[in-house]
Parts: sequence; C-alpha cells; structure tokens
Amino acid sequence: MVVVVKKDHDETQFENLKNWLKSLGVKIHTSEGESSLVLGLVGDTSAVDIDLIRSLDIVEDVKRIQEPYKNANRKFHPQDSIIDVNGVKFGGGTFNIIAGPCSVESEEQVVSIAEQVKKSGATMLRGGAFKPRTSPYSFQGLGANGIEYLLKAKEATGLPIVSEIMEFSQLPLFDDVDLIQVGARNMQNFELLKELGRTRKPILLKRGLANTIQELLMSVEYIMAGGNENVILCERGIRTFETATRNTLDISAIPVLKKQTHLPIVIDPSHACGISAYVKPLAMAATAAGADGLMIEVHNDPQHALCDGAQSLTPQVFDDVAKCCFAIRPYAYKA
Amino acid sequence: MVVVVKKDHDETQFENLKNWLKSLGVKIHTSEGESSLVLGLVGDTSAVDIDLIRSLDIVEDVKRIQEPYKNANRKFHPQDSIIDVNGVKFGGGTFNIIAGPCSVESEEQVVSIAEQVKKSGATMLRGGAFKPRTSPYSFQGLGANGIEYLLKAKEATGLPIVSEIMEFSQLPLFDDVDLIQVGARNMQNFELLKELGRTRKPILLKRGLANTIQELLMSVEYIMAGGNENVILCERGIRTFETATRNTLDISAIPVLKKQTHLPIVIDPSHACGISAYVKPLAMAATAAGADGLMIEVHNDPQHALCDGAQSLTPQVFDDVAKCCFAIRPYAYKA
Amino acid sequence: MVVVVKKDHDETQFENLKNWLKSLGVKIHTSEGESSLVLGLVGDTSAVDIDLIRSLDIVEDVKRIQEPYKNANRKFHPQDSIIDVNGVKFGGGTFNIIAGPCSVESEEQVVSIAEQVKKSGATMLRGGAFKPRTSPYSFQGLGANGIEYLLKAKEATGLPIVSEIMEFSQLPLFDDVDLIQVGARNMQNFELLKELGRTRKPILLKRGLANTIQELLMSVEYIMAGGNENVILCERGIRTFETATRNTLDISAIPVLKKQTHLPIVIDPSHACGISAYVKPLAMAATAAGADGLMIEVHNDPQHALCDGAQSLTPQVFDDVAKCCFAIRPYAYKA
Amino acid sequence: MVVVVKKDHDETQFENLKNWLKSLGVKIHTSEGESSLVLGLVGDTSAVDIDLIRSLDIVEDVKRIQEPYKNANRKFHPQDSIIDVNGVKFGGGTFNIIAGPCSVESEEQVVSIAEQVKKSGATMLRGGAFKPRTSPYSFQGLGANGIEYLLKAKEATGLPIVSEIMEFSQLPLFDDVDLIQVGARNMQNFELLKELGRTRKPILLKRGLANTIQELLMSVEYIMAGGNENVILCERGIRTFETATRNTLDISAIPVLKKQTHLPIVIDPSHACGISAYVKPLAMAATAAGADGLMIEVHNDPQHALCDGAQSLTPQVFDDVAKCCFAIRPYAYKA
Repeated sequence: MVVVVKKDHDETQFENLKNWLKSLGVKIHTSEGESSLVLGLVGDTSAVDIDLIRSLDIVEDVKRIQEPYKNANRKFHPQDSIIDVNGVKFGGGTFNIIAGPCSVESEEQVVSIAEQVKKSGATMLRGGAFKPRTSPYSFQGLGANGIEYLLKAKEATGLPIVSEIMEFSQLPLFDDVDLIQVGARNMQNFELLKELGRTRKPILLKRGLANTIQELLMSVEYIMAGGNENVILCERGIRTFETATRNTLDISAIPVLKKQTHLPIVIDPSHACGISAYVKPLAMAATAAGADGLMIEVHNDPQHALCDGAQSLTPQVFDDVAKCCFAIRPYAYKA
Repeated sequence: MVVVVKKDHDETQFENLKNWLKSLGVKIHTSEGESSLVLGLVGDTSAVDIDLIRSLDIVEDVKRIQEPYKNANRKFHPQDSIIDVNGVKFGGGTFNIIAGPCSVESEEQVVSIAEQVKKSGATMLRGGAFKPRTSPYSFQGLGANGIEYLLKAKEATGLPIVSEIMEFSQLPLFDDVDLIQVGARNMQNFELLKELGRTRKPILLKRGLANTIQELLMSVEYIMAGGNENVILCERGIRTFETATRNTLDISAIPVLKKQTHLPIVIDPSHACGISAYVKPLAMAATAAGADGLMIEVHNDPQHALCDGAQSLTPQVFDDVAKCCFAIRPYAYKA
Repeated sequence: MVVVVKKDHDETQFENLKNWLKSLGVKIHTSEGESSLVLGLVGDTSAVDIDLIRSLDIVEDVKRIQEPYKNANRKFHPQDSIIDVNGVKFGGGTFNIIAGPCSVESEEQVVSIAEQVKKSGATMLRGGAFKPRTSPYSFQGLGANGIEYLLKAKEATGLPIVSEIMEFSQLPLFDDVDLIQVGARNMQNFELLKELGRTRKPILLKRGLANTIQELLMSVEYIMAGGNENVILCERGIRTFETATRNTLDISAIPVLKKQTHLPIVIDPSHACGISAYVKPLAMAATAAGADGLMIEVHNDPQHALCDGAQSLTPQVFDDVAKCCFAIRPYAYKA
Repeated sequence: MVVVVKKDHDETQFENLKNWLKSLGVKIHTSEGESSLVLGLVGDTSAVDIDLIRSLDIVEDVKRIQEPYKNANRKFHPQDSIIDVNGVKFGGGTFNIIAGPCSVESEEQVVSIAEQVKKSGATMLRGGAFKPRTSPYSFQGLGANGIEYLLKAKEATGLPIVSEIMEFSQLPLFDDVDLIQVGARNMQNFELLKELGRTRKPILLKRGLANTIQELLMSVEYIMAGGNENVILCERGIRTFETATRNTLDISAIPVLKKQTHLPIVIDPSHACGISAYVKPLAMAATAAGADGLMIEVHNDPQHALCDGAQSLTPQVFDDVAKCCFAIRPYAYKA
C-alpha cells in the first residue's frame, strides 16, 4: 500500500499515523518529493482499512499494491484447485458441462431433460427450485418439491445436481444437493456466505451483475475464511449500457481469474445474453478462452417454460452446442 | 404490452398464443403491416411474463407499455404517501435529515453524536450495528450491542432511530428500531423483502448500486404485496465508469421517482460519493431537486472511525451542511 | 413504431399528430385500451423522429419496432457482404488476421514486423501513423512518414495495409492505404463519416467505447448512405465499471452483429484488454464465436514501444497466438 | 508515480529501467518489501508513459500519484479563472444561464426566443447550426444559414452566442460566434482540439458521454497546450445502465471539477435527461451544487421542433425555471 501524505501536514498527526501503521505490523518506507511525501507500507496490508487512511486530513491519496484477498489468491497457492462435486472434478484441466432447466416444473420434465443432456455429454444437472424473480408476481419456483424432483432425476441418471439457495434457513433441504449455487443477487449477502463457509459443501458462487472481479474474490474470502475451500466461480454477464443482450458476458474474466486465483471458473452463457440464439457462440467462445466448464439452460418445451424461457434451448439444440464445445475443447487456451 | 409477431408465423402457434393471452384475461388488438403483425395487449399485463413471450418462435419482439409495478405506482395513488416513523413524517411536503455514524462504536460515541446532530436540526439518528463489508477482514459492526447503544441514544435525545438489517433472523433485535434499513446489496434479497412485507415496520429501502429505478420499484412491490405500505426509498449512488467518486449520485432519480411513485425519497450523499468534502454540495443539490430527506454520516472523530471514515463529517461540519440545506429547502423543487 | 397516446388527450392535437404521421407516408392502426390508446405505425418509419414524437404533450411513450438503419440491415440483404481489400477478402466465410505495431516507429521496425507476421499467417499489416492519444504530451505518431514506412513494408511483403485517419484533410496521404481505419473516438465524427462515404475506399469502422451496437450500425449508415458499401466493423472493447482490463471485450457483439448486419466483423483483442497476457485467450474466443477476422498488435521490442506497449506481443508470441486461432477456426461458430 | 517491480526481476532490465527513468529527469526512491520492490518516481512525471512502463516484463504494477494534466490543474493556479465571452464573465463567482433552441430553424424563431429568454434573465443565446445526429436521415441543421440567423438574434438582443463546431474547416463561419462549442462526441477529436488551441476564441468543451473527468481535463490540455486558456467546461450527462433518463447527470462532477481545476463549469440539464419535465429540478440541483452556469434548451413550439424536441421547454416554462434557479443561487454551495 502506498500512502501519499500532504506536504503541509501537521507533524503530530503524521507521527500518529506512522505509529498507528506500525501498530498494525506494517513497515514504512518514506520517499520525499517536491510536492508530496510517499509512504510505502510493507508487509501484510490486507487488514489495513484503505478508506480509513484515505479519510485522514493529512493524506492526499492511497493506492493498494497487494490484492486484499488471501485464500483465493494464486500467489499463495500456485496450483489449480480441484473441486470434487460428488465425483465430478472441476479444475486442473477438466471440462464439464452443467445443463438443465431454469426452473424445475415437474418430475417428468426434469427427469426427461436429465436423461437427454446426459446423452449429450453433460456431467451435472442444474435446476431452480427457489427462483429469485424481479417481480413478486412472477413464478417463484416449486421450492422443496423442486429439490425433490431434482433428486429423482439424480437417482435416475447418476448426475450430481446443483440448485440455488436463497436463504440460509433453506440449507437442510440442500443436504443431498451436490453443489449449492449462490446467485448473482446474493453475491454480497455476507451473512449467507459466512454460513456457507461453516459447511463443507461445494459452492458455486456467481458474480454479481455489477460486481468487479476483485469483489467476487473478496466474497469468496467470506466462504474460505470459514474453512470451506470448495468454491467454484461463475461469470454470468455484467450490466453495461448495451441493451442488445440482457447482460454483457465478460469473457476476459476467464484469463483474469485464471491469473488471480486457483479456483475453477464456469461460464453461464444463457443468463449472460438472455437470448437462446446467442448461447451457442458464447459457449464456444468461453470454451476456447479456457473456461473449466459451462452452465447451460435446457428446456424440453421452451414454449411453456414458466420462467426465463427466452434463454432456454431444447435438448436437440443443446446436443449440437455440446458437440461444438467438445470439438473446440482440445484446442482451448491453457493459461 | 405490444407483441410483434413474425409475418411468416405458423398459424397454429399463433392461435395458441392468442388463446393463452386471452386466458390471462388480456384483450388483443391486432395491427397488420407489410413486414410485421403487431398485437396490442389491453388490460392488466403486470402478470404476463415478458421473457416467456419473447422466447416464442413466432415472436419477433415484445415491448412493455405499462409499468410492471402496482402498489408503488403513482398512477393508482396520485397523492404522496406520508410514512410516519414514530412521529417523524416523511413525504407530503416534509423534509427530514437523518444523521449519525456509519458504525456504532460505543454508547458514548453514539449518544454524543445524537445530541449534537439534534441541535443542528436532524430529526432522526442513524447508526450501523450490522455492517456489510466487502472484506471479511474489515470491522463487521457491534451487532446486538450496537442496537442497544442506539436505543440509549434514542432515550437520551428522543430521536427515532434507523439501522440496517442483514438477515431476517435479526428481526427480534429491531423491535424498538423505528425504521429498518435494507441496504443496497440486499435490494434484491427477495426472501428478506417478503419477510419484511409481513411486518408493519417502516422500511428504508436503498437502491442497489447497479439497479434501475424500475427494479427498485419492483423490489418495493415485494414489501407492499405483503401488506406493508410503510416504505421510504433511498438513492445512494450507482456504479458507473467514473472513478473520481466512489459511486455516481443519480440526482435525476428524484424527479423520476416523484413522477412514478407516491413514496417518499431520501438521498444519501455520504455513500454516493465516498469523500467527505463532496457531501455538502451533493446534499444541497438533493435538497434543491426536491428530496424528502437526507441521510448523512456524522462522526465525532473521523481519524478513528472504524469503518467508512472517509465519508464522515464531524458534527461541526454537519452543522454547516444542515444549515445550508435548510436555507435552500424553501426554494426547493416541488413536483 | 408504436405510439402510446394519453387517454385524456386534446382531440385537435391528436388529429394534428395523425395528419402529420400520414404526411410522412406511414399508415396508422389504433388499439384502444382502458388506460391508453396505442397507435401502430406501419410502413417505413426510419425517417420518423422518435424524440420529436416523444416530446408531444399528448404522447405518453413511443417504442421503435423496426431498426432505424437500412443499408447495413441483413433483413434487406440476407447474404454476407464480401469486402475486397486489395485482394484480401473479408466476409462470406473467410478469416483474416491483421497484425502490426500500434505505432510505426521506423522503416526497419515496420518492415521487419511485416515480414515476421506474414510468416505466421497474417494477411494484412496494421500500423498507426496518426495516433489519438489522451494526453497531448504523449507520442502523437510519425504522421506522413509513418504512412511512407507502411508503404515500404507493403512493397516488401505484398501485405495490404490499414492505418487510422483522424481528419479528412489527411485523406490524400491515404491514397495507397488499402483500408482506412476510423478509430473508436471518431465513430460519431459524422463529418468524417460523410466524407468517407463519398470515397469508394474500404473502411474499418471501430465501435466507440461507449456506443451501442445500434449506434455503430447508424454510423455505418452515414458511410453507406453516401454510396460507399465497403465497410468492415470492428469491436474493440466497451467501457464498463470493471477495471481489471482496460475495456471489456463485448464478445456477444459477434453473434448480435452477424444477425443484424451482412457486413464482416473483426475483433481487436489488444485494445480491448490492454494487457498483452490476455490477448491470446481473447483472440481464441473471438475466433470460436465466429469473427471474420482479428486485429492484433505486434511489436518487435515491447520494452521500447513508443505507445501502447502494454498491449503488444512480440512476433514470437504472435506466431503462437495465430497458430492457436488457426487451429480453432475450422470448429468456429457459423451463424 | 509508483512502480512495483517484481521480486525475481532480471537485474540488467532493472538497471535499464532506472537509467531510462533518470533520463526523463525523474528521481527514484526505492522501498523494498518482502514480496515486492516499490520505486517512487519524484519530479514531473506528466510526460512518463504509464502504459509503457506497465508493459515491461519486470514491472508488476504502476500507479499514478500526480494528475497527468498541468494547465487546467488548480494546484498550479489556485484562483478561479474568469473567462470573458464578449463581456459575459464565467467563473470567479458569477452565474450565467445560456438558453436557446437545440436547432436554429429560422430567423424569426431564433430572434423571438432570444428576446424572450433575455427577459427571463439569460445572458447568452445558444443555437445549433451544425447538428451531430445519430442517424443520417435526421435533420442535420441549417449550417451557415443557421449561424447567420444566430447573428441576427445577437444583433437584435445584444446576447453573445454559442454554437457547435463539428469540423475545423467550419471555423471561418464562427468568426463572430462568441463561444465555440465542442460537442460530447468530439471531446476526443484531438485534431479539432489542437486547432482550437491555436485560436484565442473561448471554447465550451462538453464532456463525452463515456469520458471520465480526468479525460475531460486531458482534452482541455490539448487546447491549453496550444496557448488558448479560454476554456469553459460542460457536464451534460454520462452513459450508464439506467434508462429512465437519456443519460445520467453526474452532479458530483461539479465539486470534483471545482477541486481539480480553476476553469468554470456549466451544466446542461436538457441533454443530460432528455425529458423536458426533468430539466427544472436538475437545473436547480446544479445551481445549488455550485455550477458557474447552466445551458438550457428553449423552443417556442416544442410540437414542431425539428430536432431534440423532447428536451425543450417553452419560453414560459423557461421563465419559471430561471426564476427558481436565481432564487437558489444566493444560497448555492461555494467551494
């Protein structure tokens, strides 16, 4: 961390600042220029509150040099982490496609889709039981019944399942869910993250639609600081000024995250664009850029989907998408 | 709602669409052009899932004409709502300043600040007990003790208090809190909103930093649909590409919200800019633009604030800010 | 176009509006609901000023159904356009890599790079002679001499060249430049676009960093309306809140543009991310998503680049990038 | 500037870097930590190319401490600049309202509006002769005739005039125009800025809709570096995800610019929101926040405006807006 101190500072305040910094265990190197005085803070500065220092009268500016996250940082853990989701391994050179309906609607629906996507090469089943909808008047999901139907599909196909949790009180329902998804809107629901950090369940943490990559890694830190190291990251589009797609898939997040963290990265092209016709090229792009996996919405009858139908593919179209991604995978970028 | 149907559509699918729409209780008017067929849906379309219609093969585009929210809509409730927070009235021509520390640190601190901001004209006290912090290594608030100290300050000064809830299980602690704040990161924590909708406590709902005004009003709908009509809105800055301020205060949100909803609007200039030197001009601008109130962070010793010190004013500076806002208020915009 | 008229409108104003619309040659279909009156405008509405209609007292809202651009619209020109740049063909299933230094620095530099990138498979040479720099104190390019050196490299290698024009008065210098680039900052320099529309030179139009895809196609319209149909589009990153990369590559722009226009699309991963380590995965992603070409910065000595060195690759690294993109190309998405 | 060097750097490269930096006239202070080596560059670093340094193999990160602009920097020119526009003074505590039509349509129109806005207290007349329109099919302005009509209105009322230039070849037509506007789309048209820097005409430089405040000040530098110090800045809304208003007025730009530069700041609420009903509260907010002036569109018949009618007020409404702003002005923020 670098602190720029005003030239006309009060000496007592300056001494107080230096003493306080030393009390936090950081060493101070001083560079004096004509118009400013620069302090270089050396040591572990992840606990130093940058906003607090910036607020001081005598401080002109502060810049962070080190990343403020530790557990997810590749610097301290150079090898890829491999997250085992009931036998399906994410990270370390593997590639998995998670597929399934946005919302679980019935046992037949989800079992049928599970069987079809498995044939196409999907290794995990997704399905929403609790749905975060912008409007209270939209379908909110089947809840506990939805989870039950997912479990039937798991039984029928052997595919591990992932579903979204919206509140910690729902956790008991997720006992047999293999991967618990934290949705974009809850990426900074810190109470939920802390509770999930106390479990040892694998967590799929989706990036918030207006959150930076660094904020995503800070949210991971809430889970990992609790001792749960089983985290998979998911980029699903960010909010920009462009309206041709629902959100803008941040494809660069793949190499940026690969550099900054050892955790696996999954891309959700369905939610990113919100238009089923664009899912295939985005899935192929994500594969080429080196994603560790994809999460794709598949629906057996998009005409009657109760939710988010606009972004769903039929199993037939998914089969083609999967084929094309598997064809690219051997040539994909390796960091 | 207007649905543009492809000219070369399948007739059976088209009939299915029309029958389904009629089953939802909407009437259909048809306009036929050379390159498209436009259906005008008439009636209450707030329950029609726009994404679902967009996903149909035969549909080229859909546009919403009516707002998708009802309870908060000024069209159906032309007069300003007046929200009574333990005697302090928001809306209907009143103007209130809520002031206090970002985090409650001790009883002495919060009582002392409460006494000083009351003298300067503040009519409510704010203070954080549970703090949503980006980093798990930052100070997370005093929790229940923080609420207790706020109640001491309420007792000492008679000022009603507002504090942020982060999870519904914390609700019993908020029994004597007069106004419950839902923070920006929880604006789309729909489970929390639904639970608060079942209470009759006044709620201060902050706009998410990447949420549109329409999404804010949809989140209000979650609370009001449960029967709780006591909602005050708060604009606190949105995320943009500009980095000179922490967020960008969306000053236009004041007249936009005044037109669209009957609920009162409070502006938080402290969080919007993140730099204490800019709080005063932004508070004055918000007052001039017709805000129903302000929420301002005040700290007795910014040098030692445990959290967000960068945006805090001293009571002395706050006194000047309040004076300048009160001076402008008689000349403020009236919608 | 759909016009929503207020229910309590003045009848004379309403008649005036309808007469004016008819005078523009559009037909009007009327749908009357309980709370609004909707006019469907049928016919060619690309000349109807949507802002003007929106401003009328009696109008509540207006929505456009048709795209406001014609010449670039795939609806009226379903086949891919093929743009011939001195023998190198863009569009219609071809794939080209344009490579070269950000700034031309000397004849040796650019000839040497041209020879090397040609060996790696590049089919065109890029190089900046006039440089748009944010700071007037940064290197502004070699100007006419830069163009001269590019022509030497063209002579030496046979590669057609592309360089950026910043003002129309520079046009005579571009006589032997095969493809004229309009940079992101000039995407809405309409005077320049009009002048280029009067030439028949192939134009590479880069998307502005805060311009929508629709605005890009409207800017194309300025060139094509003048009779110049030789336009190649270039996506080079948009401005968002994320700061881990200089801009955010909008990978979805590839399928969106493929659907909306018949013009070829080139991706510039170098400027999009601004960090050379991320160029390779982004180039591979763009190839997989079906881009018609790539434009990549290559420099023989990044340590001494006079400009934008941060995003330049060495010829050795470029060779690897090109190989990996060519390997993916056979499996790339086809719209 | 602070340069973070990798710990495992090549020593020769490190010596090269230090020698090169010294050759640019900057002094180097070194702080060595456990995981990084930090160089503090002291002296005038505005000519040091930060992107170039960032590109070096041995460099991990670079942060700028000093602002990269000089002439506009308040640090080196603490007093407000006062820009004299043919007798009307901007800056130094004055307050001016510029008003007039978006587009000049006829002599009668502009003279009539000029007379009316003068009565309401406007001290300058605005009017567009050359119009930058997104679509080539929209009205492009009257050109030279438009300037002529503005000059007639100037003669009739004595109000100095401002109009937008789109290309340097138009300059002779602006001989009697008192203030030359550079529009948002041309804020980084560096060739135009350089040419205007060679004149001594007052320039109104509008912020680009996706440009940071720092970039605005860098563009000013292009004009001032040429010797023209007569620059007035204009904030007119930035592009964000919010669609309730055309752009988002960045009200914080007023105090930020007041801190960073000595140049006067004018706010254009008309273009910022694009909806005439919101102009009044935004004008009042800008006045309260300490703007040095406002620029407001006024049209005598919004029903027939040829361009941008949606954001125009009638002279009657403008009279009320002006009165309300003048009423607030005595209480406005003073930096």
